[in-house]
Amino acid sequence: MSQTEFQLINDYFRHDSVAFARDGVELGIGDDAAVISVPETRSLCMSMDMLVEGVHFPAAADPFLVGQRALAVNISDLAAMAAEPLCFTLGLAMPGADRAWLEKFRDGLSIVARQYNCPLVGGDTVAGPGTIAIQVQGLTGRGQSVTRSGARPGDAIYVTGTLGNGALALAAQNIDVQFGAAFEPEKAALSAADIDWLNSRFYSPEPRVRFALDARHLLHSAIDISDGLAGDIAHVLAASQCGAIIEADLLPYAPVLRRVAEPAECLAAALYGGDDYELCVTVAEASAVELERIAGDLSLSLTRIGTINSGRELLLRQGSGKPEPVQHQSYSHFQA
Amino acid sequence: MSQTEFQLINDYFRHDSVAFARDGVELGIGDDAAVISVPETRSLCMSMDMLVEGVHFPAAADPFLVGQRALAVNISDLAAMAAEPLCFTLGLAMPGADRAWLEKFRDGLSIVARQYNCPLVGGDTVAGPGTIAIQVQGLTGRGQSVTRSGARPGDAIYVTGTLGNGALALAAQNIDVQFGAAFEPEKAALSAADIDWLNSRFYSPEPRVRFALDARHLLHSAIDISDGLAGDIAHVLAASQCGAIIEADLLPYAPVLRRVAEPAECLAAALYGGDDYELCVTVAEASAVELERIAGDLSLSLTRIGTINSGRELLLRQGSGKPEPVQHQSYSHFQA
Repeated sequence: MSQTEFQLINDYFRHDSVAFARDGVELGIGDDAAVISVPETRSLCMSMDMLVEGVHFPAAADPFLVGQRALAVNISDLAAMAAEPLCFTLGLAMPGADRAWLEKFRDGLSIVARQYNCPLVGGDTVAGPGTIAIQVQGLTGRGQSVTRSGARPGDAIYVTGTLGNGALALAAQNIDVQFGAAFEPEKAALSAADIDWLNSRFYSPEPRVRFALDARHLLHSAIDISDGLAGDIAHVLAASQCGAIIEADLLPYAPVLRRVAEPAECLAAALYGGDDYELCVTVAEASAVELERIAGDLSLSLTRIGTINSGRELLLRQGSGKPEPVQHQSYSHFQA
Repeated sequence: MSQTEFQLINDYFRHDSVAFARDGVELGIGDDAAVISVPETRSLCMSMDMLVEGVHFPAAADPFLVGQRALAVNISDLAAMAAEPLCFTLGLAMPGADRAWLEKFRDGLSIVARQYNCPLVGGDTVAGPGTIAIQVQGLTGRGQSVTRSGARPGDAIYVTGTLGNGALALAAQNIDVQFGAAFEPEKAALSAADIDWLNSRFYSPEPRVRFALDARHLLHSAIDISDGLAGDIAHVLAASQCGAIIEADLLPYAPVLRRVAEPAECLAAALYGGDDYELCVTVAEASAVELERIAGDLSLSLTRIGTINSGRELLLRQGSGKPEPVQHQSYSHFQA
């Protein structure tokens, strides 16, 4: 569908709503490659995600929301590096040239692209089963990106926002979430407003870019919570060669989750549920007050949930009990 | 398959054969994002291709060859910008964790990555219908990338290598190529050695990076021939707001194509066949001799095929006839 391909790109993606001009983009969509310039004091971060229809989003999902979410979750990876969004590329396989779908999808991308000043600069559109590949590019201070490997014993562990909303949003959509823990929220107790809020958290996650940029000088490590807190912290511990104790009682939950799920279910949703796209960061104990002030200035909820130690294990303490190892089981997407 | 996903990436792609260290790569595979540095005198080119199983490569194709070709055709886009390969990212959807397939695929990527010093720095592996997204990054002189839009009236048009081999390779694999022209090569006349050579051209195209870098200072425009000469030159003409006359008798064909196809079929294969991954460049008439010398120094076949003019049409002259408009029809991949 080569002619169709160019037609699609021309008609739908080479459009000012999403492929707008920006400092640093020398040549955008429409040539063999895009060209960007990187200031000499900066480095470039790049992250790619693949999203498959029926696995990462339901086939019947609103294309506007799919576009919005697809770009937002990628930008969340930039936030986890404390990088400033610069531009993105889009690879799209779709069974046919569905113009209505494309237009809404582009509008969803556009909302996020505009919000983060992160235009589309290139990509590829082909015939095939519904698959979205997005790569985001962002700028960080040269040699100053925040990685998974910088956590140090004694660091305080913080998370932004609340956890477990991704799991509840999926459950509310009657999507079978499998994370090896009984999670049977009382869905009948969810109001229409609750469901709206959950869908908005799920389809319009807010990448914590501003917080990461403002706090960059304090952060020892950062990761975004895409697969569940347990699995994601485990990546930080492995990369940093550290251990951690998480205090179960400190994990932050939204009121709606507390209302429709038992405490053990809330815990499971946070640890294993995924799709929260909050940041988990570690800072020196001495930086804790300043970190909390930065979050406060942004009116962003920030919660200390535990401490890095010199062990190698991820331990969870419930109440005043003895810390126990946490399984690193992660989110299994929509299908088995 | 989140755990599987990380397992796959760890086991197969975070491997020195393909994810090797290179100047300019500050942080490679395994964090939320890769980090690269771009020297202050350079700009960064980026190009993404999506390849779908059953559309861009047969499902039964040797994964080694699929990997080799997938990276090579992306690097060909960098050659078309006269950019030096720096690194690539890989998004991979596959139905299950087929370790044998993955290992061969990685080995195919590795051959090309090593040859062009272009390591894997990140990506994403997910469950889904077989789809490969590759984005290549490359360096060009700041503000000096060669684009599609720089052709000028009077420019000489050159192509590297020979044309139509992609179409013949597909025909030899009994893949139905549809480009709106009768193309029925005498396949029975192909020897085993012919087929080996055609497969090697198809699965191991040689991106013309060295030539593009050496000739960069002369090039007014460049494009790689992925969709057929007619469609690809049409992109240059549209971007440059020019016209062109192509001399049919000058188009370069490999001996095997001349032997098994009529002249009109050779012409159709070149104009509409695609998958040749040669470069089509334009230079000032005054640069023609130096351009030919550069190709000669690389023992690379280079053929002048026509001239840019101030019109808006792509015209083709056959013999001493009157130039006639060329349809811009492009390659339709494997399926209708």
